[in-house]
Amino acid sequence: MNLWNVELEGYNKNNIKKYETIFVLANGYKGLRGRLEFSKIGNKGNFLAGIFDKGQAQVTEIVNCQDPLGFNIYIDNELVNMEECSVDSFKRVLNMKEAILSAELVVTTKSGKTVEINSERYVSKSNVHRWASKYEITPKNFSGKVFIENYIDGSVTNSSDDVMNRSKHLSIIQAYDIRPGIALETKTIDKKIGIIELTRLIGENSKGNIFKARRYSKLGEKVVEVYETFMREGTTEVIYKYGTTYTDRDTDEELYYSALEELNNFVLQGYETEKSSHSEAWDEVWKDIDIQIQGDDKAQVGIRFNLFQLAASAYEGDEKVSIAAKALHGEGYKGHVFWDTEVFMLPFFIYTRPKVAKALLMYRYNTLDGARENARLSGYRGARFPWEAADDGTEVTPKWGFDYEGNAVRIWTGDEEFHINSDIAFGITEYFRVTCDEGFLINFGVEMLLDTAKFWESRVEYNEEEDRYEINSVIGPDEFHEHVNNNVFTNYLAKWNIEKAIYFKEWLKRKDENKLKILCNQLCVNEEDFEKWVDISKKIYIPKSEDGTIIEQFQGFFDLDYIPITEYDQNSMPIWPKGVKLDRLGDTQLIKQADVVQLMLVLPEEFSYDIKKANYEYYEKRTMHKSSLSPSMYSILGLAVGDTNNAYKYFIKTVYTDLEDNQGNTDFGLHGASTGGSWQSVVFGFAGLSIGLDGNLKLRPWIPSNWDKLCFGVNWRNSKLQFSIYQDVIEVYSTGENSISVNDRIYKISKNSTVVIKK
Amino acid sequence: MNLWNVELEGYNKNNIKKYETIFVLANGYKGLRGRLEFSKIGNKGNFLAGIFDKGQAQVTEIVNCQDPLGFNIYIDNELVNMEECSVDSFKRVLNMKEAILSAELVVTTKSGKTVEINSERYVSKSNVHRWASKYEITPKNFSGKVFIENYIDGSVTNSSDDVMNRSKHLSIIQAYDIRPGIALETKTIDKKIGIIELTRLIGENSKGNIFKARRYSKLGEKVVEVYETFMREGTTEVIYKYGTTYTDRDTDEELYYSALEELNNFVLQGYETEKSSHSEAWDEVWKDIDIQIQGDDKAQVGIRFNLFQLAASAYEGDEKVSIAAKALHGEGYKGHVFWDTEVFMLPFFIYTRPKVAKALLMYRYNTLDGARENARLSGYRGARFPWEAADDGTEVTPKWGFDYEGNAVRIWTGDEEFHINSDIAFGITEYFRVTCDEGFLINFGVEMLLDTAKFWESRVEYNEEEDRYEINSVIGPDEFHEHVNNNVFTNYLAKWNIEKAIYFKEWLKRKDENKLKILCNQLCVNEEDFEKWVDISKKIYIPKSEDGTIIEQFQGFFDLDYIPITEYDQNSMPIWPKGVKLDRLGDTQLIKQADVVQLMLVLPEEFSYDIKKANYEYYEKRTMHKSSLSPSMYSILGLAVGDTNNAYKYFIKTVYTDLEDNQGNTDFGLHGASTGGSWQSVVFGFAGLSIGLDGNLKLRPWIPSNWDKLCFGVNWRNSKLQFSIYQDVIEVYSTGENSISVNDRIYKISKNSTVVIKK
Repeated sequence: MNLWNVELEGYNKNNIKKYETIFVLANGYKGLRGRLEFSKIGNKGNFLAGIFDKGQAQVTEIVNCQDPLGFNIYIDNELVNMEECSVDSFKRVLNMKEAILSAELVVTTKSGKTVEINSERYVSKSNVHRWASKYEITPKNFSGKVFIENYIDGSVTNSSDDVMNRSKHLSIIQAYDIRPGIALETKTIDKKIGIIELTRLIGENSKGNIFKARRYSKLGEKVVEVYETFMREGTTEVIYKYGTTYTDRDTDEELYYSALEELNNFVLQGYETEKSSHSEAWDEVWKDIDIQIQGDDKAQVGIRFNLFQLAASAYEGDEKVSIAAKALHGEGYKGHVFWDTEVFMLPFFIYTRPKVAKALLMYRYNTLDGARENARLSGYRGARFPWEAADDGTEVTPKWGFDYEGNAVRIWTGDEEFHINSDIAFGITEYFRVTCDEGFLINFGVEMLLDTAKFWESRVEYNEEEDRYEINSVIGPDEFHEHVNNNVFTNYLAKWNIEKAIYFKEWLKRKDENKLKILCNQLCVNEEDFEKWVDISKKIYIPKSEDGTIIEQFQGFFDLDYIPITEYDQNSMPIWPKGVKLDRLGDTQLIKQADVVQLMLVLPEEFSYDIKKANYEYYEKRTMHKSSLSPSMYSILGLAVGDTNNAYKYFIKTVYTDLEDNQGNTDFGLHGASTGGSWQSVVFGFAGLSIGLDGNLKLRPWIPSNWDKLCFGVNWRNSKLQFSIYQDVIEVYSTGENSISVNDRIYKISKNSTVVIKK
Repeated sequence: MNLWNVELEGYNKNNIKKYETIFVLANGYKGLRGRLEFSKIGNKGNFLAGIFDKGQAQVTEIVNCQDPLGFNIYIDNELVNMEECSVDSFKRVLNMKEAILSAELVVTTKSGKTVEINSERYVSKSNVHRWASKYEITPKNFSGKVFIENYIDGSVTNSSDDVMNRSKHLSIIQAYDIRPGIALETKTIDKKIGIIELTRLIGENSKGNIFKARRYSKLGEKVVEVYETFMREGTTEVIYKYGTTYTDRDTDEELYYSALEELNNFVLQGYETEKSSHSEAWDEVWKDIDIQIQGDDKAQVGIRFNLFQLAASAYEGDEKVSIAAKALHGEGYKGHVFWDTEVFMLPFFIYTRPKVAKALLMYRYNTLDGARENARLSGYRGARFPWEAADDGTEVTPKWGFDYEGNAVRIWTGDEEFHINSDIAFGITEYFRVTCDEGFLINFGVEMLLDTAKFWESRVEYNEEEDRYEINSVIGPDEFHEHVNNNVFTNYLAKWNIEKAIYFKEWLKRKDENKLKILCNQLCVNEEDFEKWVDISKKIYIPKSEDGTIIEQFQGFFDLDYIPITEYDQNSMPIWPKGVKLDRLGDTQLIKQADVVQLMLVLPEEFSYDIKKANYEYYEKRTMHKSSLSPSMYSILGLAVGDTNNAYKYFIKTVYTDLEDNQGNTDFGLHGASTGGSWQSVVFGFAGLSIGLDGNLKLRPWIPSNWDKLCFGVNWRNSKLQFSIYQDVIEVYSTGENSISVNDRIYKISKNSTVVIKK
């Protein structure tokens, strides 16, 4: 078992779309679904970060761009594909170490011709505009004419599986015959963003070019070139396919010439040269992000898959894009960015790839104007970050959807799920806590903290009778309950958001008073606001149980029906209790996902062990885990309160969310939050990493008995720390001088040295 | 076993294209390939007689028009198709009696939803612009949303299986939302012929319309409407799909309005009403054409298939189209018309559907100007009918093709296969012999006879040394031998063509002297020509063997290598003898198909029994039957010379050419000549029907021992004759007074009576 590979052995038409998601190759700029060229089944997917369009769709969505993958082999006019041929052997491998997707096929055509095809593909990490494939084709029992077809398909639509809602976001601008090579240029419907894909085939053997004839054609919305070649039994011919991509987001030059220059250089440098740079770039990434789990191969491969796809989805070179809930892996959630990024994925980047973390936060900064529009249009002040975000920060949550019974229902999250503002504030302060990047805070972070606080100021309602501030008619992380009053997660984090705004306003005053003044002018805030903020933070209402132990998720939650969860499916996930009305979930104490528990993970230092334990136990019984965001959080809090059994179960569940498709919707994209949650489960959960009140890192590890060793690294301010956790020993290596608390004892580490701690 | 049905039981992806051809529904105006809607495999085919285009193709070819069949069922967004679902049961039936194609499927989607779909389809014989389908859909184990997608696909190309030569012949003009219904209008590239397809779905049950929502969209070159409906477990819903087709060839009105009016009337009258008219129209056809073979079910079903598809391919309402070699059943031979029509298919129509026969001959008349162009451009005079014909009579034979070894070779048939002229002359005189349609001969037939004779006058070469006329550098029916001199079939029929021209010139002089004068003026012929014609007919060279028994196929044939055929395949067809060079077949005595034998069938009265027998035996040993035109001819001549064993074998081979795909290319269309040859095998072969020198019909039947009864009818001048041939009795019924010779004894039949003749 290669612990760097995800392998699929044997052809099964029922798992095609799932593996298209799992086998996505992405570089944060482009995400190419792991479509097998030789099949008519499946969903094409070529997503370019930041390319959004509404067109006829319900809301603005990520555009499924023209598909450049088209590659067909015809043996004397018989198409080689999985549906029309018999499949003699079939294997696909995602090599995560090098970020290469390969396929090994042997198929036999209707007329009995057997061909072996070994192919690989990469989407370059070293040059995001480049991608390429390589095909090794071997006739096993014939010699004869073989036609190779290279095509770019502009007939792609979004929502191809949602027959009533398919949307076309591209108009065809021009097809080009590059001689050799082809290109197809499109534009989006609304913003007319130009997109071009170029491809070129190179087939060479010891005698030079293997092609005998070529024909170019534009067939409707497809641009096609076909090459004729002659292949000999037992002789392998190699064909390289080079591709480049440009959009109007990338260049002010004419797209065609930018992409053509890129293509010419790429071909000149060659497939293998770029592949090496690409693999080296991934080597660098892996040095930062890898987690080793020795003794548990399933966990090892699984965690790497999550790290791989999460890292693949980000691109530090573009500060105007973020990572969608489904990353660049599918059309699920329409390519929108949720709190998933800041709360679930961002910690991974903060601790391993801080430059990416900064780019992700800069996306929020760069879409602040949209957030301000959202506030203004809903009658509030400051910045109201959208529950679902696309390219400009305006709210793009669909207004309508379907409930679990298929009834059309109004979706209220875009109207009521306000906690996104605090989630982003959390991301900002967490980034700063770990990196100490003062420049970011001064130039961008404080502005966001102040403007989100300003929003809360306008959003809270003062209850004179109770002399308290309330936030009514909201949705918390648990979306089963809508229009609720005083959701704790929302209120607690609003208070915290305001407190951080005040704290960092003071901080900025010390660092750069003039900057603060400018900000206050620009954001229209003054001392009156700051005083109000203090008042709000003191008097905001946080519901609790009578004895103060159990935090009431929202006002009135305790009065709802308690319906015990008694049955679990084969993945040990809860089954809907009998008698539950799926269109009346709001009347019950069943919750979709971690909510109070989530709060305790976002702000762990604010809650005692006993409170955490009580609330974990109380809410765990009520959680349906109908979101992939949930299991990892229960895993982490479980470990914090000593529930190690469930913790491992939730951890594996999280790590295998996509590999085992345990939410049943991997077809539509990666569960990005779950990939981030996987990392958090290991680092915050098993390793028990947190930041102490003293500002130092704390470790409180517990690893499952079958784990021989858990190993990972983090960036910590100006150092790199490397942790190796064995059953009875903990080793910490640091590149800089550090103090670290392990199981509540403080250890000093000198520069470039390791401390070994016996449990 | 229903002797009216061709059935396919069980799904097999390897026979899809074959059955698409076998299951074509055609009405002579339109041919719709028997594509299963629920599959991504196969070749779309919507052929409209007379719609040709060159565009980027090698030569002018029948256009594969926009496909109106598109119909998808999505069970809650899961597409129901053969590739993605499991197929629980599958049956398709071509009911030839009523010309209805039906399918019965039970399939289960990936998520386990089982649906039964029973569908049928017809292409109306009573109104050629109409076609329709009916779908009965029954959820077997679920209730829920079902989406029905109706679409017209304009992305169709010709030669979709010939990847280097795919050609797009349509430009999209407009998509229409008919509300309800959709339409797609296209134009051909060269002649800008407009083509429109309209379709509309009607889904109704006892409560009225079953659809809940509709969405129209134009997706690239497709026009789509999707309906949402709700289906209940165990309840069958019925959806009708109505379609109408118009082209600029049919109307001077605006296409959209013509087709829409047709559609509205069609829907108003209803699916079942049109289906009844359609079936009644077919009843009338079957009364004329049916052949009953009792005691041999395989032969019975087989012969009906041939009669059905041949009759389906003709349309007496259009005198500017003919039947292509592959009929309206596929793109093979590019929709071109060959001698197949006059020599192989026409006799069937002459004897059973004389109005169709006239229309087919009128196609030649209406394309005479093209034939004259061919003569002029090649330096000859008169009319030179094209070896391959499309819409205007000009030569459209490709110049280049591939030999049996896949080498590119020049195709010479369009330059050298001159006998097409005499074949058409043969069709004209044969039509007249049987129908006595003097009007046709006066107005059209004689003109063609004279102009083809005039061509021969310019084509023959006078050999002074031998004092004879020769026709050198030609190809006869046997196309293995090119550039041959004095092919007997060519020379003999040229002579005969000239003789008939002289004969009918005299005939016309008697009937309508003025008409003849006008013709002579128009065609620029005078007595000098007529004298020359007489001279040519006397002195044209016909090679023979030394003893005069064996006719030498062409000058020098006897000197070629004789390579005995020793092996036969599982269909008892010859296998290439070992050592034969497939690119040097012209050096051998191997022949592709009947040539001298063909001559003896075209002009049976010109050759004695002994000569026929000797030549049959001589050439049968040398014939590879690499054309589907060949076996039926050997069957007929075999019966004439007493080779009853081989005759039945060749007959079954002919009848099952497509049903058993024994030429290996049924995928690309019907073997039209073979369907006509099937009829000829029965009527001219087993029944031994011919026209005696006295001008009366002759019968000389022999039927296989397992046939209890052979029954068929013919039109004979103003009567209808019905023959019932038993092993020991022959019954002949006639609607008019007739004399008929049976086994060389003459019987008189009075009006509406039957003679019973004991063998």
